[in-house]
Amino acid sequence: MKVSERKSIRKYQSREVSEELINELLEVAMHTPTMGNMQLYSVVETRSEEMKAKLLPLHFGQPMITGAPVVLTFCADFNRFTRWCEERHADASYDNALSFLNAASDTLLFTQNFCTLAEEKGLGTCYLGTTLYNPQGIIDVLGLPKLTFPLATITVGWPDEDPAQSDRLPLKAILHKEHYTDYSSDAIETLYALKESLPENQEFVRVNGKENLAQVFTDCRYTRKDNESLSQGLVEVLKGQGFL
Amino acid sequence: MKVSERKSIRKYQSREVSEELINELLEVAMHTPTMGNMQLYSVVETRSEEMKAKLLPLHFGQPMITGAPVVLTFCADFNRFTRWCEERHADASYDNALSFLNAASDTLLFTQNFCTLAEEKGLGTCYLGTTLYNPQGIIDVLGLPKLTFPLATITVGWPDEDPAQSDRLPLKAILHKEHYTDYSSDAIETLYALKESLPENQEFVRVNGKENLAQVFTDCRYTRKDNESLSQGLVEVLKGQGFL
Repeated sequence: MKVSERKSIRKYQSREVSEELINELLEVAMHTPTMGNMQLYSVVETRSEEMKAKLLPLHFGQPMITGAPVVLTFCADFNRFTRWCEERHADASYDNALSFLNAASDTLLFTQNFCTLAEEKGLGTCYLGTTLYNPQGIIDVLGLPKLTFPLATITVGWPDEDPAQSDRLPLKAILHKEHYTDYSSDAIETLYALKESLPENQEFVRVNGKENLAQVFTDCRYTRKDNESLSQGLVEVLKGQGFL
Repeated sequence: MKVSERKSIRKYQSREVSEELINELLEVAMHTPTMGNMQLYSVVETRSEEMKAKLLPLHFGQPMITGAPVVLTFCADFNRFTRWCEERHADASYDNALSFLNAASDTLLFTQNFCTLAEEKGLGTCYLGTTLYNPQGIIDVLGLPKLTFPLATITVGWPDEDPAQSDRLPLKAILHKEHYTDYSSDAIETLYALKESLPENQEFVRVNGKENLAQVFTDCRYTRKDNESLSQGLVEVLKGQGFL
């Protein structure tokens, strides 16, 4: 699957994905650019039924966790680098927000290259955004120490479905020439017209009893109540992991 | 250039990179997975000498800014989505840390896929980590509104150099099976042995007058003083952009 054809795969064949293949893909993905060549990430590979069962509720029961042969949790990691500094009597000072964002950047770039490489091999992947909703639970289950933080969970397996590609905004929605141009009312109408016109999106509006698609997002999918409480929890966990 | 062969390119030919090619690459990269299909990113494309001159000092004078035909600043963007919600009388509540990290994730995954696609076409790219060091300056120059944040700057051009690939840690340094295994002193010795033995790294130690490579990082490259002051600045800018 090329990037131009990619889609998230949520149903997998029971066929295994070998350790060798995962290792090979991670090893190639390690050529992703990284801040000062520090490689500020770690990956926890979950294959056992026991560990998947523990992760499952933390990802709100999404069936990919137990349905995929391999679950990978990509973590920002300044712990390893700091441990090296300690061994070398070097004054490590990476317990701050900048260092967290440096490590998060390294981690997410690496995650994406892993996924692209996996998809080139015919594997299907799904990115679970739920990782940021209950980081403390994931930290506890995977035994993540201070100066690490789980950012992305990727389920990996051989595809057992072939869904349609999702719609995307037109390029001009995201591209600004020289300066950012803020969005006028007219621009919003034009840029969201296709998305709002799609039958599947109109169906979302209908089944949720809302006036329009934006309200499905704000009132059903990503609500003020959830955003505010999950965000507060996230900040607490970042503090607990030593990053704030 | 395949991912397995990739390296950062800092010197570019004077030959142009067409708008059509950049557009095509961004358009394909938009198939990158995104949180709830919200596409929480924007890209500001810089080609004019005037704008490059303004960005240059914000990136500490790194010559790739003026040497590359195209400079792309990838920004987390919850502004566009929020503007859509406003137009639709939907209660947007994305002014928080969770939403920032959601948008940052979308943005960085998208950034990496853009780079991979550009490299497949033979382009060279360099990721400038300096974007996080002076975000307010970049916000001012590019006119970035609230609920946006510059995360990654990529310089793009046709390569005019062919540097060696950087070393990487062995795979076992970053891969954990089922549980995170913290690093013993012995593990640190083994995992960092190759890096510390490389002639170019030993030369860094020598020219900086340090005892070892870790101290080059902590005392010269990423110091406590810089980390702490830059981090404080970063948090203030995140607040100013409405994310904290």
